[in-house]
Amino acid sequence: MSDLVSFGETMLRLSPPDNERLEDTDEFEVHVGGAESNVAIAAQRLGTSATWLSKLPENPLGRQVVGKLRQYGIETDVAWSPQGRVGTYYMEQAGEPRGTNVIYDRQNAAVTTAKTREFDLEPIRDAKVFFTTGITPALSPTLRDTTMSLLKAAKEGGTTTAFDFNYRAKLWSPDEAKEVLTQLFPGIDVLVIAARDAQNVLGLEGDPRQIAHQLGSQYDFETVIVTRGAEGAIGWHDNVVHEQDVYETDTVSPIGTGDAFTGTFVARRLDGDDVPTALEYSAAAAALKRTIPGDVALITEEEVETVVKEGAKAISR
Amino acid sequence: MSDLVSFGETMLRLSPPDNERLEDTDEFEVHVGGAESNVAIAAQRLGTSATWLSKLPENPLGRQVVGKLRQYGIETDVAWSPQGRVGTYYMEQAGEPRGTNVIYDRQNAAVTTAKTREFDLEPIRDAKVFFTTGITPALSPTLRDTTMSLLKAAKEGGTTTAFDFNYRAKLWSPDEAKEVLTQLFPGIDVLVIAARDAQNVLGLEGDPRQIAHQLGSQYDFETVIVTRGAEGAIGWHDNVVHEQDVYETDTVSPIGTGDAFTGTFVARRLDGDDVPTALEYSAAAAALKRTIPGDVALITEEEVETVVKEGAKAISR
Amino acid sequence: MSDLVSFGETMLRLSPPDNERLEDTDEFEVHVGGAESNVAIAAQRLGTSATWLSKLPENPLGRQVVGKLRQYGIETDVAWSPQGRVGTYYMEQAGEPRGTNVIYDRQNAAVTTAKTREFDLEPIRDAKVFFTTGITPALSPTLRDTTMSLLKAAKEGGTTTAFDFNYRAKLWSPDEAKEVLTQLFPGIDVLVIAARDAQNVLGLEGDPRQIAHQLGSQYDFETVIVTRGAEGAIGWHDNVVHEQDVYETDTVSPIGTGDAFTGTFVARRLDGDDVPTALEYSAAAAALKRTIPGDVALITEEEVETVVKEGAKAISR
Amino acid sequence: MSDLVSFGETMLRLSPPDNERLEDTDEFEVHVGGAESNVAIAAQRLGTSATWLSKLPENPLGRQVVGKLRQYGIETDVAWSPQGRVGTYYMEQAGEPRGTNVIYDRQNAAVTTAKTREFDLEPIRDAKVFFTTGITPALSPTLRDTTMSLLKAAKEGGTTTAFDFNYRAKLWSPDEAKEVLTQLFPGIDVLVIAARDAQNVLGLEGDPRQIAHQLGSQYDFETVIVTRGAEGAIGWHDNVVHEQDVYETDTVSPIGTGDAFTGTFVARRLDGDDVPTALEYSAAAAALKRTIPGDVALITEEEVETVVKEGAKAISR
Amino acid sequence: MSDLVSFGETMLRLSPPDNERLEDTDEFEVHVGGAESNVAIAAQRLGTSATWLSKLPENPLGRQVVGKLRQYGIETDVAWSPQGRVGTYYMEQAGEPRGTNVIYDRQNAAVTTAKTREFDLEPIRDAKVFFTTGITPALSPTLRDTTMSLLKAAKEGGTTTAFDFNYRAKLWSPDEAKEVLTQLFPGIDVLVIAARDAQNVLGLEGDPRQIAHQLGSQYDFETVIVTRGAEGAIGWHDNVVHEQDVYETDTVSPIGTGDAFTGTFVARRLDGDDVPTALEYSAAAAALKRTIPGDVALITEEEVETVVKEGAKAISR
Amino acid sequence: MSDLVSFGETMLRLSPPDNERLEDTDEFEVHVGGAESNVAIAAQRLGTSATWLSKLPENPLGRQVVGKLRQYGIETDVAWSPQGRVGTYYMEQAGEPRGTNVIYDRQNAAVTTAKTREFDLEPIRDAKVFFTTGITPALSPTLRDTTMSLLKAAKEGGTTTAFDFNYRAKLWSPDEAKEVLTQLFPGIDVLVIAARDAQNVLGLEGDPRQIAHQLGSQYDFETVIVTRGAEGAIGWHDNVVHEQDVYETDTVSPIGTGDAFTGTFVARRLDGDDVPTALEYSAAAAALKRTIPGDVALITEEEVETVVKEGAKAISR
Ligand SMILES: [Ca+2]
Ligand SMILES: [Ca+2]
Ligand SMILES: [Ca+2]
Ligand SMILES: [Ca+2]
Ligand SMILES: [Ca+2]
Ligand SMILES: [Ca+2]
Ligand SMILES: [Ca+2]
Ligand SMILES: [Ca+2]
Ligand SMILES: [Ca+2]
Ligand SMILES: [Ca+2]
Ligand SMILES: [Ca+2]
Ligand SMILES: [Ca+2]
Ligand code: NI
Ligand code: NI
Ligand code: NI
Ligand code: NI
Ligand code: NI
Ligand code: NI
Ligand code: NI
Ligand code: NI
Ligand code: NI
Ligand code: NI
Ligand code: NI
Ligand code: NI
Ligand code: NI
Ligand code: NI
Ligand code: NI
Ligand code: NI
Ligand code: NI
Ligand code: NI
Repeated sequence: MSDLVSFGETMLRLSPPDNERLEDTDEFEVHVGGAESNVAIAAQRLGTSATWLSKLPENPLGRQVVGKLRQYGIETDVAWSPQGRVGTYYMEQAGEPRGTNVIYDRQNAAVTTAKTREFDLEPIRDAKVFFTTGITPALSPTLRDTTMSLLKAAKEGGTTTAFDFNYRAKLWSPDEAKEVLTQLFPGIDVLVIAARDAQNVLGLEGDPRQIAHQLGSQYDFETVIVTRGAEGAIGWHDNVVHEQDVYETDTVSPIGTGDAFTGTFVARRLDGDDVPTALEYSAAAAALKRTIPGDVALITEEEVETVVKEGAKAISR
Repeated sequence: MSDLVSFGETMLRLSPPDNERLEDTDEFEVHVGGAESNVAIAAQRLGTSATWLSKLPENPLGRQVVGKLRQYGIETDVAWSPQGRVGTYYMEQAGEPRGTNVIYDRQNAAVTTAKTREFDLEPIRDAKVFFTTGITPALSPTLRDTTMSLLKAAKEGGTTTAFDFNYRAKLWSPDEAKEVLTQLFPGIDVLVIAARDAQNVLGLEGDPRQIAHQLGSQYDFETVIVTRGAEGAIGWHDNVVHEQDVYETDTVSPIGTGDAFTGTFVARRLDGDDVPTALEYSAAAAALKRTIPGDVALITEEEVETVVKEGAKAISR
Repeated sequence: MSDLVSFGETMLRLSPPDNERLEDTDEFEVHVGGAESNVAIAAQRLGTSATWLSKLPENPLGRQVVGKLRQYGIETDVAWSPQGRVGTYYMEQAGEPRGTNVIYDRQNAAVTTAKTREFDLEPIRDAKVFFTTGITPALSPTLRDTTMSLLKAAKEGGTTTAFDFNYRAKLWSPDEAKEVLTQLFPGIDVLVIAARDAQNVLGLEGDPRQIAHQLGSQYDFETVIVTRGAEGAIGWHDNVVHEQDVYETDTVSPIGTGDAFTGTFVARRLDGDDVPTALEYSAAAAALKRTIPGDVALITEEEVETVVKEGAKAISR
Repeated sequence: MSDLVSFGETMLRLSPPDNERLEDTDEFEVHVGGAESNVAIAAQRLGTSATWLSKLPENPLGRQVVGKLRQYGIETDVAWSPQGRVGTYYMEQAGEPRGTNVIYDRQNAAVTTAKTREFDLEPIRDAKVFFTTGITPALSPTLRDTTMSLLKAAKEGGTTTAFDFNYRAKLWSPDEAKEVLTQLFPGIDVLVIAARDAQNVLGLEGDPRQIAHQLGSQYDFETVIVTRGAEGAIGWHDNVVHEQDVYETDTVSPIGTGDAFTGTFVARRLDGDDVPTALEYSAAAAALKRTIPGDVALITEEEVETVVKEGAKAISR
Repeated sequence: MSDLVSFGETMLRLSPPDNERLEDTDEFEVHVGGAESNVAIAAQRLGTSATWLSKLPENPLGRQVVGKLRQYGIETDVAWSPQGRVGTYYMEQAGEPRGTNVIYDRQNAAVTTAKTREFDLEPIRDAKVFFTTGITPALSPTLRDTTMSLLKAAKEGGTTTAFDFNYRAKLWSPDEAKEVLTQLFPGIDVLVIAARDAQNVLGLEGDPRQIAHQLGSQYDFETVIVTRGAEGAIGWHDNVVHEQDVYETDTVSPIGTGDAFTGTFVARRLDGDDVPTALEYSAAAAALKRTIPGDVALITEEEVETVVKEGAKAISR
Repeated sequence: MSDLVSFGETMLRLSPPDNERLEDTDEFEVHVGGAESNVAIAAQRLGTSATWLSKLPENPLGRQVVGKLRQYGIETDVAWSPQGRVGTYYMEQAGEPRGTNVIYDRQNAAVTTAKTREFDLEPIRDAKVFFTTGITPALSPTLRDTTMSLLKAAKEGGTTTAFDFNYRAKLWSPDEAKEVLTQLFPGIDVLVIAARDAQNVLGLEGDPRQIAHQLGSQYDFETVIVTRGAEGAIGWHDNVVHEQDVYETDTVSPIGTGDAFTGTFVARRLDGDDVPTALEYSAAAAALKRTIPGDVALITEEEVETVVKEGAKAISR
């Protein structure tokens, strides 16, 4: 039985090596990535047992996904489907001014057909935290229902619910997202949201501190985290606002930074940290993540602590 | 203006290196493959100008496909689509008893929406040969109509039509295939068909010579090629049957063998060869193809001639 | 709780790509391998839940080993050590007459200090089968004691004990091996042994059938498997001898063939197969393993069944 | 028929991966590069149809060059030679203070024997722009004559002639270059020249604005571009001088920056841009090029526009 | 006969490519590294003939080490051992805040058993400089004795002795190091020491200038170099202190920077440079080293001179 | 001072990985190869000290060649040239019927200008054997003179001269080769020649035994080896003919097989073997070579002995 259960889609990520262009590469590096499994892995690396729930086709590509997630330390509880595909995304990573670009090829993935009855709800009810993101209900009407049901099951079991708003413009419009996601808000305890999404999707105004306060008050969240990229994050809790800066980092792979942050926040809070301490560890984990290829935060608790205590370090030998 | 115009889907092929398993690899080699472009390339390498017609999404993956086909020497005439995806297939190549396995992920590719009016029919009418395969109409109802229309346009222009039956069990049932493809037969001059498909899909009986004869007589084809894998091929023409053996080969990549054969046959016939001579060159080209990674026959006319004349050769230095 | 529990060392395997020589390579492919985890993985792939017990240093290399084993589907129960190293072996794979050569660098691995009290014995007592090999007691005097204790715990719990003799000339002399391993025989139900080891280490004479019979009678094993490389295997059970041929295979990696055989045998027997049926599946799994890079049998039950039923197959598409 | 025709040498570029030294690498990445084809590709990517004229040996290395250029979108019109070699260059890319170093191995390339009569001059006469550089006449006396003849043919056809001065110290002395290239100036409409070359080879003095003005006045060019590396470029046209800054960029490959600039300038001018607008797009294209491995600007018109309008961008997903 | 003889351990370095984590990589790049051979190579590249003395097992891994050192230009005089292992170290290179981390796996390497009588002492007596570091006596009691004997032999032969203090916290405590290494000081002419080690191990106080002076006076060294990482180095000689800044550099591989510095210092001093000139070349060589993958300074004398004279340079073509 | 001195050209070999075609690869593996250095390396691996004489440009590519040869164990005595190039050859390795193909790009290599006065002749006079091949005089008129002079110097010093006929059709015609090479015969003690060359170039008739006998008698060689590829070799010595079969081998790289044979023959003869024993070791070395990538025989004396004594062997662990 895991303390954290997350639910969502994990895709194959196909990316050219060495800044090659997608149109010119003759090789893809294969990784797996998905916000919900990324968060589970980050939390597990920080000491929280974690299980990822999803649906995959019963074929070698489905096994790729599960194998990698297991390698990185989490448990998986998968509804295996005789049909369907694994969602993929093509990622071309580049410096400025080209920038990193993602091509999603995730339509009709097996997970888009995942119904509540395909999962055992006991682990959700028995967990300490249940986590999903705004990507999941964006994937299909079926997943909207399922997300709602799983959040409800968590609530019934007294499980804390955490949710990353994660608006994806390539999946739906701001209006659709706002309508669907605000319906989920009453079932959510901890909300993570980018300041940009709060402004552009929810139409909130003011600075991030004000946004955090508005959200917390209006929807009665227990905790609200407003993230601001390189400008750090805001944590609202018990009507108090905490600011957290970012740690400087040599970025190798920016994708997954927010998930490392969120997974660490969940783990540290479960471990008893107060909000500002949890935010500090989360920022350290996020900085470490950016030095690691791929989407997931293959970090250790000790490394995060070293960053919090000492910042960067010399060669250790 | 090209002498050969082909129409069909070309996919990205993603394959692990060095006999790795799909579920375990962390790298895919990227190739492009599709029966109709494979045939066009083989023909072009043997001296026939060739153009491939298709539909692709206007994104880096669509440009990958076109770029590779252009590299290999053919022209492309693509209907660029603002939406849709590039079909992909995952290929795990292995020796016995594991065998080579293919996972198609080609549903909803942009090409499945290709309508006749998206193409300029003049090049088809002006070509000497128009080529497509039984895969194309298997991909969508729209493509069934389009295939029919393009074959009709070819006929109107006095263009010879060549067709590879290419039954794919992962795309449709034998009954569906039989119904659809036999409707196309009246518009086809040159049919290539595997003995196995003639038996299992069309329900023909007898040995390959008898099958070739039955098909030629019943549907009034100008030429029928019945392929038998390692046992060679049969060519039926002017009511005469010709047998062709395979050349021995050190196989590196079996995929595309038949397309190399067919493309060479088309090119040599256009060049004036009689059927048995064209079959001999086709068998040589097919043997060469198997020594080359990927789906396409990156061969030269000179190499094919050397095989026909001398068989295998020593190190040339 | 797993049906199969195995105990032993798993090493990092470092091997040059593409037949390069160890002295000349500038790259090692990294795999993990160890007879006991190989067997557990093969059994798990055939449907038997499996856990591997061992000791590793708590560092990134220890996590490499556990991560890969988890990826391949088994559970791990590791005594994490603050000191010590991960055993490594360098493998240069080559064709004849060079042959494959292994350089062990496994002395003083953390596992050589593993004491019985560092493990929870309940899973061994609760398992259906406990498995280890003659390599484990060869690694250190401590491991001789621990092996003996764990076999005893299994017996106390009514757990079937299976043992692969696996004599390694680079670890100890035939005389030492004979003395130590025959002391373990009374606690063992199922013995797997190479005919060569039975002759050279145990000093048995006669053909493999006679060897199997002698061993079974003399030491009162429930089952004896005598393996003979390319000549197949002999299974002795209930005083009956069964012969099993090998399946033809295109070998990519010979290491781990025997472990694939043994793991499959264990799984199929647990699944209710009689000895000759289990042997047939084991031979099929062993043939599949040889087509796969690395030490472990990344196979599926369905693939094994296909080999048993149909032998090799054509391209599936 | 292409709007742009360029003429010159394209070489194989052999470069070690990952900052390895030429003397130590055991692997070369293979690219193709040449100023004239680089410019044609950049122009084609911006929407101008382009053909590259040259001479190559009829062997697999000659086909490498043509295949890659075709992949990148341009047409090729090659005089195939039964003898001769493909020019190569070895490039060791490194940061400071090592710096990037190039070893040319281009002597006696087939192209050095290219005579005017080996080319069809109609496409030059029918084009809107003919382009070559100061490298071409540096390669052989034969190429000096051929360059002169092709420029003359362009003039006869009313084709605008564009020329990049491109002095290469490893090919000839400043005095030789000055003598030969200034003889070509009367046939040239648009001159691109590095401020450094104007000073060191032509002996001009003053700041880049003054140099542009002097060149334009003295030789009666229609347009003069003076490039200054990281300090931007100067465009002189209709007796007016325009300054253009560089865009900031994360450099992956500096080679080909100037060619991306020039090709874009040609394309945008053909598209109707005035000089300052064309310069701005050219600077944006040059910045994008530096993020891409290899010599060529695999960019899209849309990307260039985004840089001009928005500068760098966040991850797009 | 070489002018420089060095003595010490050289290990296999196993490092993941592209910032991968040790726990996740499936590939190691293979390099060889050791302070004493690194110094010998740097000196040889600057024109000083050099021989490296050590002990290795007679197997392919021992030959890897010797082969690479020979490739890089030095001679080797190895005591080949029938047993024992090659020391290895795993290096995970990363940016901040992760930082570069080293896992040593060097215990029980063959070199730890190297006795004085296994070496021919003539080359040491005939050399101009004998070099070793504080790592060597840290490896085993036997090596403490051997180091002492070889330094004594050098003294007897009138050979200048140079020594890099090189404290390694993963090998011994500061107290042990201080006790052993200060016993060697009377036999040493040129000492190189990090300011950090002088403070933390020897307990010296004051700024680096003071430390250099204290060391020189107290132990009667001929020359003392105190290194300070990015803040440059101090050279004390004839009671005069010289300061040397670092050159800016784009770091690809930080390991071996100090060895490049020291080897160059030795070579330039042998070549007749005064101390400040030698320091300047050493700083230039160190900056070049950091642009090169691996541990060794594959530089040329000409490159070092260019940096000293001109600093960084543009693309040379 | 080395027992064997060889003289000739060593080239960079550029070859695509994994059976890719030269025209399609985007990567070359870098090796060095040349008959005379290959022979020196094979001899050195069998225990004969060896030095290779040649001329190279003083640049990183020249250092590549020397570095690799030193890595493989031989000494080099190179005339460094300020100008000139390193000869290269492109090798496309493939199975039948494609076959392995070589494109030479070796014209105007620095070595083609090597004059006798650029070398110290003492090592040749002091050696036990001097070796070169028929490739060297084929490269330039200068090298014809130099080859003649070096053979003469060897004779003067009482050094045995060994010569591999090595006719290369891509370098000169049979008539030229015959004229030049037979002029060298009077200075040669040991001749190695392919039966094919004896027939096609020298015009000899009869079976290989007769050819060996004719050559030995007519030109007064001490020893004649006639090689016949897969059919083995003939050794003629003291008017006696010895036949040697080939050992079966799994070929990875056929290039360099003959050089491994010849180098081993030289080494074993120097070691005191009679001709039939030396032939047996040579055949074993040749078989081992074919299992190794690249041109050189990275073998050990022990491995050769094992093949001679036991043939192929099982996995050694
Ligand atoms: Ca590439
Ligand atoms: Ca490979
Ligand atoms: Ca892998
Ligand atoms: Ca290598
Ligand atoms: Ca390599
Ligand atoms: Ca390397
Ligand atoms: Ca490499
Ligand atoms: Ca890389
Ligand atoms: Ca990887
Ligand atoms: Ca990999
Ligand atoms: Ca490729
Ligand atoms: Ca590649
Ligand atoms: Ni490519
Ligand atoms: Ni990678
Ligand atoms: Ni990765
Ligand atoms: Ni490839
Ligand atoms: Ni390929
Ligand atoms: Ni390789
Ligand atoms: Ni691999
Ligand atoms: Ni692997
Ligand atoms: Ni790469
Ligand atoms: Ni590398
Ligand atoms: Ni290498
Ligand atoms: Ni690459
Ligand atoms: Ni590239
Ligand atoms: Ni991997
Ligand atoms: Ni390296
Ligand atoms: Ni590859
Ligand atoms: Ni290689
Ligand atoms: Ni190699």
